[in-house]
Parts: sequence; structure tokens; C-alpha cells
Amino acid sequence: MSKGKRDVIVIGGGISGLSAARLLQDQGQNVLLLEARNRVGGRTYTVKDPAFQYVDLGGAYIGPTQNRIIRVAKELGIQSQIVNEKERTINFSNGKSHAFRGAIPTYPGFFALLDANNAMGLLDSYGEEIPAAAPWDAPRAVEWDSMTVQSWADANCWCHFTKESITIISRAAFATEPSNLSFLFFLWYIKVGGGVLRFMSTTNGGQERKFVGGSMQVSEGLAGKLGKENVLLNHVVSSVEQSDDGVKVTTRTGDVFEASYMISAVPIALLGKLTFQPPLPSLKSQLIQRMPMGSVIKTFTYYKRSFWRDLDYNGIVLGSEGPVVGSFEDIKPDGSHPAIMGFLNGEKARKYCLMTKEERKKVVCEYYAKVFGTDEALHPVNYVDHNWMDEEFSGGCYMAAAPPGVFTQFGRVMREPLGRVYFAGTETANHWAGYMEGAIQAGERAAREILHQKGLISKDEIWQEEPESLDIPAKPFDTSVVERLLPSIPGFLKLAATAITVTAVAAIVHLL
Amino acid sequence: MSKGKRDVIVIGGGISGLSAARLLQDQGQNVLLLEARNRVGGRTYTVKDPAFQYVDLGGAYIGPTQNRIIRVAKELGIQSQIVNEKERTINFSNGKSHAFRGAIPTYPGFFALLDANNAMGLLDSYGEEIPAAAPWDAPRAVEWDSMTVQSWADANCWCHFTKESITIISRAAFATEPSNLSFLFFLWYIKVGGGVLRFMSTTNGGQERKFVGGSMQVSEGLAGKLGKENVLLNHVVSSVEQSDDGVKVTTRTGDVFEASYMISAVPIALLGKLTFQPPLPSLKSQLIQRMPMGSVIKTFTYYKRSFWRDLDYNGIVLGSEGPVVGSFEDIKPDGSHPAIMGFLNGEKARKYCLMTKEERKKVVCEYYAKVFGTDEALHPVNYVDHNWMDEEFSGGCYMAAAPPGVFTQFGRVMREPLGRVYFAGTETANHWAGYMEGAIQAGERAAREILHQKGLISKDEIWQEEPESLDIPAKPFDTSVVERLLPSIPGFLKLAATAITVTAVAAIVHLL
Repeated sequence: MSKGKRDVIVIGGGISGLSAARLLQDQGQNVLLLEARNRVGGRTYTVKDPAFQYVDLGGAYIGPTQNRIIRVAKELGIQSQIVNEKERTINFSNGKSHAFRGAIPTYPGFFALLDANNAMGLLDSYGEEIPAAAPWDAPRAVEWDSMTVQSWADANCWCHFTKESITIISRAAFATEPSNLSFLFFLWYIKVGGGVLRFMSTTNGGQERKFVGGSMQVSEGLAGKLGKENVLLNHVVSSVEQSDDGVKVTTRTGDVFEASYMISAVPIALLGKLTFQPPLPSLKSQLIQRMPMGSVIKTFTYYKRSFWRDLDYNGIVLGSEGPVVGSFEDIKPDGSHPAIMGFLNGEKARKYCLMTKEERKKVVCEYYAKVFGTDEALHPVNYVDHNWMDEEFSGGCYMAAAPPGVFTQFGRVMREPLGRVYFAGTETANHWAGYMEGAIQAGERAAREILHQKGLISKDEIWQEEPESLDIPAKPFDTSVVERLLPSIPGFLKLAATAITVTAVAAIVHLL
Repeated sequence: MSKGKRDVIVIGGGISGLSAARLLQDQGQNVLLLEARNRVGGRTYTVKDPAFQYVDLGGAYIGPTQNRIIRVAKELGIQSQIVNEKERTINFSNGKSHAFRGAIPTYPGFFALLDANNAMGLLDSYGEEIPAAAPWDAPRAVEWDSMTVQSWADANCWCHFTKESITIISRAAFATEPSNLSFLFFLWYIKVGGGVLRFMSTTNGGQERKFVGGSMQVSEGLAGKLGKENVLLNHVVSSVEQSDDGVKVTTRTGDVFEASYMISAVPIALLGKLTFQPPLPSLKSQLIQRMPMGSVIKTFTYYKRSFWRDLDYNGIVLGSEGPVVGSFEDIKPDGSHPAIMGFLNGEKARKYCLMTKEERKKVVCEYYAKVFGTDEALHPVNYVDHNWMDEEFSGGCYMAAAPPGVFTQFGRVMREPLGRVYFAGTETANHWAGYMEGAIQAGERAAREILHQKGLISKDEIWQEEPESLDIPAKPFDTSVVERLLPSIPGFLKLAATAITVTAVAAIVHLL
């Protein structure tokens, strides 16, 4: 281990930090990466065990339009497998399983169709008004950032079905409650994930695939390319001292490292653990108090056989009533080790973290027995879960989510460099923020900021578009003309009232 | 300095930690207090200078019903002086100064009177439904915690005057924006401060007095009683390790201290700086990411003479349009060093922290010139300000304020002890939380939790009522019968509509 001065020190060995370090090294920079844990991978975490071969206890899903993670995985020779959506998906509501095929639940009625269609359309059309790189500059930013997603849904959605759908999106995709989230942040996050359908879909969407062998291979592969001597595990950074000509980084155990520049790929909410000299400026110091991590317990319930398939179910279950807010079938490519992966997120995580693992296993199995309608679900062969709230160096999962008022007041400083220190991490992305894709975009962008600072690339090379993958291309979504033209409930009532009035006037005219 | 094992270590030498340590020492416990700064006082901070004798750059105001801080100050021989409210107060709105006498602004019209009166009445009546010690248990807790104060005002206030008043309360009393705050937290905080009038008033309210010589004397006095050898400054705690028989506390520089119990009087948002072994449980670990400190720059503009008094103004200016969200006259008891103390809070703090001190001085003086209507305000003899967002060991001021969804989901664990570690700090109070009063209540309660744990007092002695001060008694507020009976605007319109209908029906009946 060389203690000589490096060009760049990267703090954080998740996908974002490793992507930054790797790009810099490829450009001839002498890079050192410091990781607090005894492993790389950050919020991706693959555990191996003969009982189930391997399991992704952290971030796992990828899909079309996520071209950076597809590129990196391909370079590293990591294959992906399709997440099963063949059979019927279940929407569990009002104590009953409602099965449907494809991405969109069967609407419980005509008004629910109008209402949900209108709400989802609004989320996308509002998203179009939001600049991906600066959501705080949207014309209606202050209005949307002044309310929670819950307040917006309460004021604008008419049907229980629609409000419940918003709750499910908040919990399953943001790992938090609609009452915790800024509506502006919600709109922006869905927008940079490609809009409601791309963002929420399995097939052709963000959850289409997972990596054969587990997602942590991405980080291990990147770390391998960096070289063992350049990636130091178990190095918890405690202070960052900047001077005119460099950055001095000190660990908890007193090791000191020096470099010309530094990249932080530490989650925003955990930056307070580091002491900065000079101290963080006011807005950054207050931002890091205001971007809390989501609440996730990821569970895997293994069964002897994928009994749900026999019942024409694909294992995907959405619902707001049980412990699990969203589930997928989890199975090895050879069909072995069938399981249901279920997220206990948001208020469910906060409730079920107080239980023992055995108790959680019980409530999860009982829920599956109810939704699949079979006692076979009560008899798993194995159960694994992971509570991300307890991870000292993540603070939660999947990502930091902004409460009201944070983006408009503090968003501008999120990825603003401080002297020789630059900021990566998936939260600072503007394409699939919060995902592995965003982690790579953010890491590579931060790396290029330093290359630009050193005069090696021009300013307009910092942010780069990624060419579309030919292996996993994105298809457009076929939203029928009917759906695009459907009115909202108030619109429909107005139309109906007009029709009734016209008919009545015609009748009166006829009578006269 | 004895390195022997103590009974209790207290971390944090603000008023809360010192109050805890002092009560424990009085009960015969061997106490050590560790303070990160080179001074005690925490968020109270008195600076001395021949130019102005002394100035309170931090917490300063006290008033009737704050009987604990009154008691402690009296014991320490600290006098208080009345904040001037004799002349007219200014409400600066729509670019104009509207002057009035007493606590309640002149309403800009009949509807504004109805609307504001109704809104303030609702805040108090909702407050009555909220248990002070467990706001998350209020019958409507989930509803109120799902929205921001801004969302509530947008949906329930009709007049600009009322919405502006809510903004001023949020900024002046919470140091944040109504768009950042949970409505449940807002209601609870006002309730435990005695209701809208007590909470917001100068005379007979929370801002009635300040301490002659400065509020930091309280902490210095308490530290003096504890004894120099028991209060260690410049000791930044970095880790807390619990075992079956005690707590081991380590500082950044490697000093180690041991005790049977520990009290943390560290602001909630800064607890992440400490490493706990065993680690903080899930909910606590996520709570500390979710209680951000307010944004405050406290300014003092000194003048040759208190020119505002000549214009029949008392120096109190409220408004949402300028840099200053609320101001008071600040003057020594002998009439020397007249100044206007002005808070730049919430979004104002976030805007003006980007300026230099000289630039801030200029905008503040220009604002005073406009509101007082005299160029004399442009010529201060001195200007002092303090940006609390830059304080590493406070993280902001006045206190932590909960965004939506935090109290109902995480509030329960706020003051829940963890093994041998107990939690003080003004945020954990249920009487004048966020104030010096709350700091003492919380500190003494945490101390008594340990005394109870040691079998020295009974459980029902932990929480203690404080007898009312005879020196500074609280008077009831004289809200006239008319104000209590006034309807809301919708109520008034309904009444009016009924009256019109009755009149019309009577007229029709008369015609028949």
C-alpha cells in the first residue's frame, strides 16, 4: 500500500465510487479508493450460501434505458436474466387478490379507470415541465415542493384505487410513505426514471432483469480492475482536510492519505459523520440533515417449488394492506431455489423491524398464503431477510428521498463541488437517480469534473449521453389512444353535465 | 482530571446537559460532562465586547410559564429585563408598514379578521386534541402529519393576511418555512408553548424578557456549580460503547472515559456523528436523519440612539417580504447600546448566508430604513451577526423541526433510552420544547430517569411539574367574547346566505 500522494482519493466503494475511480484510472490518474465496510458494493450486497447459491440482499433490478449499468455489466461479463411476468400479477386490495396480466391492474370500475389514468397522466405531464438536472427550476417547483405526495393525492385523486396506487408507488419505488415525500421530488424521480410506465414496469421497465450471480459482481469486477492495492477495505474515513494544493483524508484508526482531489460517494445523509476542514458551508451542512434514507427490509422466502406458477401467478404482488409492499419471483436461471422476494418498505419496515426475524417470516408467509390462496405458502424451506436501516454505512435504502421544501431550498448544492472535493452517489444523478444506473452516471460525471478541472477534457464533456444498448433495447410503451384521450373524473362529470343539459334543453325546446 | 469510573457521563454542555449533570450531582452522583466546544452554553452564546458590552448571539428570550428557566436563573442570581413593547409594533406587508399596539396586528379588513381569528382558533383547538407527551397518539395525528403547514394554510385560509401570518410564525418561531414543517409538529410545538398567544406574544409571552448580562451566564453558572474538574471543554465525543456494566466514551483525540450511565444532550440531527456500540436500533438511526435543525442568522444593528422610539415604534417588526422575519429592540438596562435584533430565518437564512457580512448589513439596514421610514437606519454604528447553520456542534438553530411523517413514524423513539444511555436536549421536552425552558425540563427528566433506574426515586417522580414563579407570574390572555364567537369566513358566508334566504323567503311569503 503506497502512502504517497495520489491524484484522486475516492471515498465509498459502492457502484458510484468504483465507477468514478475506474474512469479516472482509465484516464491515467493514480487513484485510491477507501471503503468503510469489509466488502465493496455499498447498497448492492450479494450473499452466497449453499442453501440458495446466492441472493441479492440489496439493489438488484435493471432494465432498458439503463444503458450505463448494461454497458458496465457487459464489460465485466455479467449476464442478466428476465424477471418472470408471464403469468398473472396480483393486486391485493380490500382483503382480496385481483389478478391481471401485463403492467396495468384491472380497474375496479369506470371511475377508477378515469381517475387513475388521469393521475398517472398528470405525473408524467408535470414531469415534462421539470428540468432533469435542476428540478428546483421548474416553473411550478415551489408549489410542488410545498406539499407532500399524500396532500397532492388527497386533493386530486377521487378513488381509493388511485390513492392506493400512489401509496404503493411511494412504498415500492421510494421505500417511504407518500406523507414523507415532497411532490416535486416524487415527480422528478419518476421523470428521470423514464416516466410512470418505464419506472414502474417489470417487462420493458426498471425491473425487467437481474444479474445472474448477483449485482455485487459489478462492484467486485470494477474493484478487480482497479487493483487490490488501490482499494482499501475497512477504512472508515473520519476527516477531510483541504489545503491549497490537496486533500488530506484521515481514517478512524488514524491512517492518513493525501491526494490532489477527492470524490465523496458517501450517501448524503451520512456525510455528517465526516469532519470537513474547512467546514461544510451552511447550505451543504443543512442539506445533509434533510435527505433521509428510505426504510427497507428485503425478504426472500424460499419454497420447494414455484407453486404460484401452477395457480397462473407470476409472483408479483402489489398491495398496501399486508407486510409486503411489492414482490417478485426470485429464481435461479436453471429453475432452482424458487423464492418470493418481498419488500417491507416505508411504514411496514418501521413496524416489522421491531419483530424478530422468525416473527417476520411468519407474517410474510401468512400474507403469501392469503394472496396466493394456498397454505403451501406457509411452508417455506428457507427465509432470509436484510434490514437496511441497520447498515451503519448506508443508513437505509434504496436511496435518500427529499421531504417537502428541500429540493427548492437546498437542491442546488447537492452536487456542487467544494474546493477540491467532488460529489458522486446515485442521489446526484439526473438519469435513474437512486438506481445502479444513476450511481454510474454520477460517479463518471464526478470523475470527469476532476478531469476537466485538471484541463484534460473540456467542460461540455463532463456530462455525457450514453448510447443505447443493442442487447437490451427500450421499446416504446403502447398506451392506447383511448387511454390518452380519457378525461379525468371532474372532466367526465362536466362532459356528462353538459350532455344532460343539452338533452334537457333540446327536450324543452321540443316541448315548446 | 480523574479518569476513574463515574456514575454518569453527560455529553453536551448546553443548558440541557448542564441541568441534567447538576441535578445528578445534587443527588450525590459523581458526574462528568464532556463538551465539544471551547465554551459551555450550546445554542446560547453571549459574546462580550467593549463596543456593545455583551450580546446574545443565540437563544435569549424567556417569559411567564417558563418556570424552570426562571427558577434556575434566580438561583444563579441572573436578572431579567423586559423587552420593549411600549410603542407601536410594525407589520410590514405589501411594501407598507402597518403599525399597531399590543400583540395582535390590525386586520386589513373584516374578512381578514374572521379568517385569521378562525385560523388561530383552530391551531389552539387542534392543539387541545394533542397529548403533549405523545403527539403521535392524537386522534388526527396521521392526518396532520401527512401535510405541511403550507398545505394546511392553502386549504384552510382564505386571506393573504392569514397565510402571511402563518409564514411569519413558521419563520420567526420555527426558523423554517411552512412548506418544510409537518402540520402535526407545528400544532404540538405551539401547544407545548402554551398556545398561539402565549407562544407568539412579547408581553406575557415567550419573548417577554431577556437576561441582563446574557443567557450564557445560565450555563456558566451551572458549570461553575458542577466544578471545573467535572466539566471538560474541547472534548468531542466520537464513540459510545455500552457493556453490561457501563458505558465507555471515547473522544476524537482518543481520550477514554467510563461511567455506569450516560446522557446525550447532543442535538438529534448530530447524533450520527457518534458511533454507537451496540449500534443505534433501526428507528433511532433513521430518526436522526429526519430531524433537521432550523436555519437562522441572528443580526444586531447598533445605532447611536433608539430613533424608532421617537417615531412611536417599539422596534418589533414582523413581515415576510424583507430579509428580517422578526425583530426586537435590543438595549442595555441603562439605555446604552440601542440596537435592532433581527432574525434572518428559513429561506431568508438560506439566501443571505451566501452574502458577505457587509452585504447582509446593507440589506438589513435598507430594510429598517424602509419599515421605519427614516434614513437614520442606514447609518448604524455597529453590526454583528451570527450564522447558526455554520456551527459544527449545533447544525442550525433554534431547534430540530419535524418534516411530515416523522413524528407519527419515529417520534416514539425520540427520548426512549437505549440500555444505559438516556436522551436529553430541548427537542425531547414536552413543555416549551425548543426553548431554554424545554432544555431544563428535558435535562432534569433524563437525570431522574437514571435516578429511578438506580432505585433512588420512584417512577412517578421522573416527570415533575414546576411550581409557578411568583416573580414572573403568567396572566391569562384577555381574548374578548366577540373574538371567541366570531365565525370563520365559510361560517360567515353560510350565516349570510341563510339570512338572505330567510329575508327572500319572507319577502316572497309577503308577496303571496
